[in-house]
Amino acid sequence: MENLKFAIFGCGFWSQFQLGAWTEVEGAECVALYNRTRSKAEKLAERFNVPRVYDTAEELLQNEKLDFVDIITDVDTHAHFVELAVKHGVPNVICQKPMAPDYETAKRMVKTCRDAGVNFYIHENYRWEAPIRRYKEVLDAGVIGQPFKARISFLSGFPVFDNQPFLAELEQFILTDMGSHILDVARYLFGECKELWCQILSQTPGIKGEDVATVMMKMKNGMPLYAELSYASIVEHDSFTTVFVLAEGDKGSAYLGPGLEIRTTTRDGTTSEKVTIPSYEWADPDYIVNHESGIPINRNILDDMLGRGKAENTGDDNFRTVQLVWACYESAATGKIIDMDSF
Amino acid sequence: MENLKFAIFGCGFWSQFQLGAWTEVEGAECVALYNRTRSKAEKLAERFNVPRVYDTAEELLQNEKLDFVDIITDVDTHAHFVELAVKHGVPNVICQKPMAPDYETAKRMVKTCRDAGVNFYIHENYRWEAPIRRYKEVLDAGVIGQPFKARISFLSGFPVFDNQPFLAELEQFILTDMGSHILDVARYLFGECKELWCQILSQTPGIKGEDVATVMMKMKNGMPLYAELSYASIVEHDSFTTVFVLAEGDKGSAYLGPGLEIRTTTRDGTTSEKVTIPSYEWADPDYIVNHESGIPINRNILDDMLGRGKAENTGDDNFRTVQLVWACYESAATGKIIDMDSF
Repeated sequence: MENLKFAIFGCGFWSQFQLGAWTEVEGAECVALYNRTRSKAEKLAERFNVPRVYDTAEELLQNEKLDFVDIITDVDTHAHFVELAVKHGVPNVICQKPMAPDYETAKRMVKTCRDAGVNFYIHENYRWEAPIRRYKEVLDAGVIGQPFKARISFLSGFPVFDNQPFLAELEQFILTDMGSHILDVARYLFGECKELWCQILSQTPGIKGEDVATVMMKMKNGMPLYAELSYASIVEHDSFTTVFVLAEGDKGSAYLGPGLEIRTTTRDGTTSEKVTIPSYEWADPDYIVNHESGIPINRNILDDMLGRGKAENTGDDNFRTVQLVWACYESAATGKIIDMDSF
Repeated sequence: MENLKFAIFGCGFWSQFQLGAWTEVEGAECVALYNRTRSKAEKLAERFNVPRVYDTAEELLQNEKLDFVDIITDVDTHAHFVELAVKHGVPNVICQKPMAPDYETAKRMVKTCRDAGVNFYIHENYRWEAPIRRYKEVLDAGVIGQPFKARISFLSGFPVFDNQPFLAELEQFILTDMGSHILDVARYLFGECKELWCQILSQTPGIKGEDVATVMMKMKNGMPLYAELSYASIVEHDSFTTVFVLAEGDKGSAYLGPGLEIRTTTRDGTTSEKVTIPSYEWADPDYIVNHESGIPINRNILDDMLGRGKAENTGDDNFRTVQLVWACYESAATGKIIDMDSF
């Protein structure tokens, strides 16, 4: 079978890891890159042997016959490029998370793709991290029985504002950025949320948005789930670039903690396993858990395009994560519990 | 100065530890014991050299001139014995936690004592546990700066229902029992609660009340605080008979975890200290953290009676903890956030 041909829009920092992950997946071939600043696209093209480079997305779409595009531009421009690809008849569109800068735009993007019969995928990679996948296997194996409560923590002091000063200017920060990941992991592991109460704080001096959020959820299956996110944390074990999870069930508990270690406790005692991840030439060893996750998510999306599997991160599915993010803001603003069925 | 003379009402399991703790405190002398089953009182009197034993509380109160009584009977009878002591002109009354089996009774008890000019104290000992005291010192020393969020966990699989089968029959269980402790520790460490949302579960088969509770609070100072209580937990580190606390501040974090260890993390790294507790002949080494706490709380109450200090656990103060417990039940029943100012 011939490779699916795709183009990448946006050749910023993240694109090298996305393109790197694609090189590990059989069946897809990057034929073109578009970037506003051409030199960046040329550099990336050279590194990954991509044949053609374009100054504008329109020109690329007019000249290339694509099976899909992978949009890795700034969040503000996601809708524009998704709509452009749809207009040019690209049958499959992948868009980086978070889907959109606001709830209404996300809603419109999903509708645009649905109306055009375009397969829409969101590149939400945290649920694809090896420790999270393995943790889900532990839950599904029934070792700890039926989970009845859980807590998910992303507590980090990673200097995000030093590295990316524009983040300090965002009116909304950690819930749109990390919240998308964490709330999606919550859905992946424990199902859908019925109600939530969110509190947000702005701890780092001089930033506009919130860098701390705590979310108490009641899941549809009745279990309470506490999620905490923070970029203002000075903790012994920084959870960047993954999350820590403690789930308790009627037969035991499972803790995904520091060092990608899963500690499973039953009445017979505690067993430990460390999740290991191979290294890749294109990935940063310091962020390997994050970078490697691009491989299985890309494979999962490709399988869906080829009709040999179902994608988890469709636009429709990810829209439920988007809803959680904006329900959190609504809750924080009003001080009220949000009922997800009527959000 | 002459010793203050006191009597104990109730010679059940806990009374030995309470009486043991009193033997470590200078200035108070137990002169009489009352118990429904006289033989139990006699046994305890013999062990701790208490001169007189009574079959009824009335007889004791008529015959003894007391500076205070220490009530260690079943929770259902607390109000009765408090009121009896007040009626007999005992100037100081100590009552075991939880204050009362319901909110209205607690309210009445506080009023009865206040109206009679009787000093009323609740023996709420968890905040007096050595690791909790030390943890408070760490917070107060400013090492981690101003706390902006916290989480308190009591996750245990201690077989309470095997040891005390009547607990399975209670309509309300873990919030009245352990909740009193945990919510009081929350107040002690982080101040008063503004709003809370509580979810409860009944996990152990065959029990009437709840054995799991999660409480999301918004404190008056604006910080979010998550408290989780469970007797259905099978976890690697059982927190019985204390609690684990993680507080995060703008300069670092402090974690009170397994083994009575406090790990304090700042930008300079992590330091660890283990809280040690001396042993006592009357205390059970397995529960030393809990039993030892009786000494400082008794000392604190005695100082208040003698006018040389202020008691922390007055009836008025503890009533705020009682309010939290019943606000939790109200929240769990209605599914709503409770505003403590209007509860």
